Amino acid sequence: MRLATVRHTSGTRAAIVDDDTVAVLPYGDVGALLSEVEPGDLSGLRGEAPVTPVAEAGFAPLLTAPGKIICVGLNYRSHILEMGRELPAHPTLFAKFADSLIGARDDLELPATSEQVDWEAELGVVIGAPVRRATPEQARAAIAGYTIVNDVSMRDWQWRTTQWLQGKAFERSTPVGPYLVTPDEVDHARDLELRCEVDGVTMQRGRTSDLVFDPADIVAYVSGFTTLRPGDLIATGTPGGVGAARDPKVFLQPGQVLRTVIDGLGECVNECREEKA
Amino acid sequence: MRLATVRHTSGTRAAIVDDDTVAVLPYGDVGALLSEVEPGDLSGLRGEAPVTPVAEAGFAPLLTAPGKIICVGLNYRSHILEMGRELPAHPTLFAKFADSLIGARDDLELPATSEQVDWEAELGVVIGAPVRRATPEQARAAIAGYTIVNDVSMRDWQWRTTQWLQGKAFERSTPVGPYLVTPDEVDHARDLELRCEVDGVTMQRGRTSDLVFDPADIVAYVSGFTTLRPGDLIATGTPGGVGAARDPKVFLQPGQVLRTVIDGLGECVNECREEKA
Repeated sequence: MRLATVRHTSGTRAAIVDDDTVAVLPYGDVGALLSEVEPGDLSGLRGEAPVTPVAEAGFAPLLTAPGKIICVGLNYRSHILEMGRELPAHPTLFAKFADSLIGARDDLELPATSEQVDWEAELGVVIGAPVRRATPEQARAAIAGYTIVNDVSMRDWQWRTTQWLQGKAFERSTPVGPYLVTPDEVDHARDLELRCEVDGVTMQRGRTSDLVFDPADIVAYVSGFTTLRPGDLIATGTPGGVGAARDPKVFLQPGQVLRTVIDGLGECVNECREEKA
Repeated sequence: MRLATVRHTSGTRAAIVDDDTVAVLPYGDVGALLSEVEPGDLSGLRGEAPVTPVAEAGFAPLLTAPGKIICVGLNYRSHILEMGRELPAHPTLFAKFADSLIGARDDLELPATSEQVDWEAELGVVIGAPVRRATPEQARAAIAGYTIVNDVSMRDWQWRTTQWLQGKAFERSTPVGPYLVTPDEVDHARDLELRCEVDGVTMQRGRTSDLVFDPADIVAYVSGFTTLRPGDLIATGTPGGVGAARDPKVFLQPGQVLRTVIDGLGECVNECREEKA
């Protein structure tokens, strides 16, 4: 099953997406839906919902108000090794805010105050049940599904200090969506190809089987210090090929199209434009 | 005026605190109150509210669901210079989650998985109006008031990787409160003494006049990359004297009492106990 959060006459709504229709549900977003409905009961909702053609669906951020967004750095084995680093013993974690998220077709604003807006294609994990002090097996059972995140990063701000938050939490900077795809459809995202393209040129290509810490590992680890709740989002890290690591460095420019694709999860397509003053 | 969030028969409520009474308001916490009431209209609420003796007030976290908690590192001039570092050009920022917060009299759980639970007494800043791309003057006008935060840090987790989040975001680890004190009562916290005591022994002592980035500077800076909203919380950094910087290092132990005091803002008094399994 595929869930989405779509723009609606009054705000946003969770929806079930089929091949060519969208069934709009009476929940404000996928996070609210997951907080109130057991995963096993999701398919029962479909029959009661008004159905519209899929082309009419404007994708809002998949999650509009997650209590926690946790991102992982340095998590693709081949990229770590090619950089000459050792594999980490613990995941590197940092946060974003709900205000950072945009929808899968929204324009990406390039802030007037940054010269170094970079891409980071990532597998996103959405929590479906409260989880605390979990084993990886318990953690896997608490995952509602998978999505696409581009952890767009303002490198000049990210590296002003030792802590990356200010380069990672710009308002309206992080595409997420278009769908939450349930684990059964993608074998828990064990081996999906992910790609990032800029104006059709492939900049990143990796496979989720190359993750050092897989989704269940990360959820279990985080659950060791706090509770993850339905609708919380984890971005699992990015493979090699970011603009800041290229020679010469390359960053996003107004008018370019940023495309983030994961097999089986759809794509985010976001046109870059200058921030309005 | 002093506002608090108190525990109530059904959940929590915002309240106005006078010398010996508490006027309970129909808002779930101080954050909800600030979202719905203009600062100038706060005093008008007092007359309609049921009043109870102050001793009956159990302090909940001052904010129960802030959208953003942003913490500043390395912000006391004397401490930076005594460490032989240069004064920073930009504030070092990281995040906490709402689940990290506890009330001003709540027990502080020492996690079974950390051996290095440390203190960080800090001035807290609570936002009262939406603020984006603000000058320091505009930022100051958006501050609803000041409070006490102890940014309790699990050093062994904080330093596992370059990013501090996992040592800063343990569930129920961060005392905040007891009050929001409006700016007029403390001259915008320009020169308040703050202290941290463990079992009555003073471990930290500093003055907010020693801040490199003052509250308005920080709010203005953050507003350069995202919107701060009513009820958001900023912890402004800690002076010297933390346990990890002592020789030998000292960390919190079960049964100890952590007391965090800022002149004019009251005190947080939190007894340490072992986490229940």
